[in-house]
Amino acid sequence: MFRSTTASTTRASLAGQDVTDPLADFRGQFDLPEGILYLDGNSLGARPKAALAAAGRVLGPEWGHDLIKSWNTAGWFELPGRLGDKIAELIGAGKDTVVATDTTSANLFKVLAVALKLRPERRVIVSERENFPTDLYIAQGLSRFLGAGHELRVVDNPAALPAALRDDTAVLMLTHVNYRTGAMHDLAGLTRLAHECGALAVWDLAHSVGALPVGVVEAGADFAVGCTYKYLNGGPGAPAFLYAAPSHHNSIEQPLSGWWGHAAPFEFSPEYRPAKGIGRFLCGTQPILSMAVAECGIDLMLEAGIDRVRAKSIALTEAFISVVEERCAGLGLTLASPREPSLRGSQVSFHHDQAYAVMQALIARGVIGDYREPGLLRFGFTPLYTRYADAWDAAESLREVLATRVWDRPEFHQRNAVT
Amino acid sequence: MFRSTTASTTRASLAGQDVTDPLADFRGQFDLPEGILYLDGNSLGARPKAALAAAGRVLGPEWGHDLIKSWNTAGWFELPGRLGDKIAELIGAGKDTVVATDTTSANLFKVLAVALKLRPERRVIVSERENFPTDLYIAQGLSRFLGAGHELRVVDNPAALPAALRDDTAVLMLTHVNYRTGAMHDLAGLTRLAHECGALAVWDLAHSVGALPVGVVEAGADFAVGCTYKYLNGGPGAPAFLYAAPSHHNSIEQPLSGWWGHAAPFEFSPEYRPAKGIGRFLCGTQPILSMAVAECGIDLMLEAGIDRVRAKSIALTEAFISVVEERCAGLGLTLASPREPSLRGSQVSFHHDQAYAVMQALIARGVIGDYREPGLLRFGFTPLYTRYADAWDAAESLREVLATRVWDRPEFHQRNAVT
Repeated sequence: MFRSTTASTTRASLAGQDVTDPLADFRGQFDLPEGILYLDGNSLGARPKAALAAAGRVLGPEWGHDLIKSWNTAGWFELPGRLGDKIAELIGAGKDTVVATDTTSANLFKVLAVALKLRPERRVIVSERENFPTDLYIAQGLSRFLGAGHELRVVDNPAALPAALRDDTAVLMLTHVNYRTGAMHDLAGLTRLAHECGALAVWDLAHSVGALPVGVVEAGADFAVGCTYKYLNGGPGAPAFLYAAPSHHNSIEQPLSGWWGHAAPFEFSPEYRPAKGIGRFLCGTQPILSMAVAECGIDLMLEAGIDRVRAKSIALTEAFISVVEERCAGLGLTLASPREPSLRGSQVSFHHDQAYAVMQALIARGVIGDYREPGLLRFGFTPLYTRYADAWDAAESLREVLATRVWDRPEFHQRNAVT
Repeated sequence: MFRSTTASTTRASLAGQDVTDPLADFRGQFDLPEGILYLDGNSLGARPKAALAAAGRVLGPEWGHDLIKSWNTAGWFELPGRLGDKIAELIGAGKDTVVATDTTSANLFKVLAVALKLRPERRVIVSERENFPTDLYIAQGLSRFLGAGHELRVVDNPAALPAALRDDTAVLMLTHVNYRTGAMHDLAGLTRLAHECGALAVWDLAHSVGALPVGVVEAGADFAVGCTYKYLNGGPGAPAFLYAAPSHHNSIEQPLSGWWGHAAPFEFSPEYRPAKGIGRFLCGTQPILSMAVAECGIDLMLEAGIDRVRAKSIALTEAFISVVEERCAGLGLTLASPREPSLRGSQVSFHHDQAYAVMQALIARGVIGDYREPGLLRFGFTPLYTRYADAWDAAESLREVLATRVWDRPEFHQRNAVT
């Protein structure tokens, strides 16, 4: 049913879909620069208009006027739990099982540390080489820190994951949606495989949350982490989140046992006593301004509804693939994302031998995607502010860039790192 | 020379000091609520006026307009190092030895972890019961996580620290200025003692940075951490900082080895390769909005100059102690801070049997200090926006509150947690 876009797709037909799009009005909730077609919301989401008021509230009446008492009166202390509960709705988790806090990397360290302690007789974290690098780095750092045979085992190909799950495996750690290709793992199936071998399953949802429904409870995932600055439009580097299955809340202390995870932080007791529940995964004092602003994007996502977002995401990516493959035929592109939409997140990647120069040329034309090694053009489709007609226009720009062989022009070869 | 305030101190003489105060103009750089005498900047500093423009810049042209490219064009990636270099000036450290990042608690975890690895044959972290609780909690969590005899040894009295430093001690971990009393440790002397016993010295500068000059290099400190939201006026929960002596930069990897600490994060290599230098103490993507706003307060502190700040801090606290002891004589107060200013940070604490009710009554009158167990009234003197006359007015309010025995009135007994 999602393969409804065919060779007969036209700009007019896509523009027509924008007219009937039930999410069309959400675009007006974002500040988007004029003349830019932004397809990089999978890296940094656009700014909700409400962010200005949220920041103004924190800076003005809260920090500026009420000062210290805002910790209580403005609910600053409650932000990790309040945002966590909202994120929980987006990933199929229950109340009091998610906190918004720290960074994805730090949160991954916490949950991997707990997972290893829950399987003390096992020493191996299994992952794939294609995982987002910081996840691999954290697993390596933790393994080296613990020593005593702890190690990260990475497979080159996801198909090798089942064989890599052995009786030495403490944790399967994967990113649900691949950051380069958008390929999506079978969260429930791999979690089940991990459990069958006696391991725990830790999922990074950075490229899933706000892009598609994630059923962490339904899948039986043990832990999950993710960020709020991509599809949730939380702002650059906005605090990340951490999910722990309730059965793991009160068993093991996580090692980053700072005062925000204490059962009674304002007793100022010299002995750490972990909070009951998800609160013990908190550590230090959180950046309130960034966190309060992040709530705006999360609220918009909840209002839109993740099922409607997913339906539009699939329609957008299907349209883009279809138009690109029709109009750019013979111009050297190969689809690097899964063709089957149910196996794909909310981004589309194409391989091209001159992808870096091609993306630089697209950016110069105001079509903002990004480049990833090796040779990948990456386009994120964020349904809250991307129009169907944008898929056409991006494909058309791509066609023009390819047809004019921009890689013969030196100005498109200078490299700049972009996250 | 600093004991110049005597029984002859009058409000007029203090108001006269405001007229000649070389830092007087800095008060105009802060937004302060009308009718409030804010003496809690040692917990949450006041908001620099410039914070509004800084937030507007990040939200508007950077995030809102330039979106993803701001990581490079707006210098977002450089914020941890840029702010770190500025903080370095305030704590007597060199360029490229400090990063602003994460939370004080997480940073403490990193440096304690490295310190323990640098002394693998030793298993004990020495501290004092009076240390800020999160520091003790982090040391406990890390010790329990590592097991194998790792432990935190706390002394009840700082005088017992030398005896607690033994040949099993890997690290001496202390907060330079006590959060309850303002008592200041001899940073250089205790660092020397730690080194003499073969241990490393880790200092928490949360209540020192921006309050007084700290010579971490001169003292030979191995590591230091601290926050930016107290005397640096960085905003609620603004990112913390971490100092590492250059000799420790390239020896040991810290376990929170996220991608921001990688030598080449945008290679997206599956193998962690730590950055050379202080950069390896970074972990995940930082909250840019909170960090950019924090720079405003740091810049004001650099402009004021930490030596001038310290001179005014001593004069303010001396004046307050003198006026309180004269005008509140016989009303049940006992100075809980060191009388000698060179042994004290930028706060003054008094003990009173009914301190909780007394502080509630002061707050109701607009004199904002805070209460800390057991029975302590805590007053922070932040020289950039506190006037000499404020010391008089706060003392006078205290006198009135004590003289009217507010603790006989039930409305001042309801408890609210305030950080």
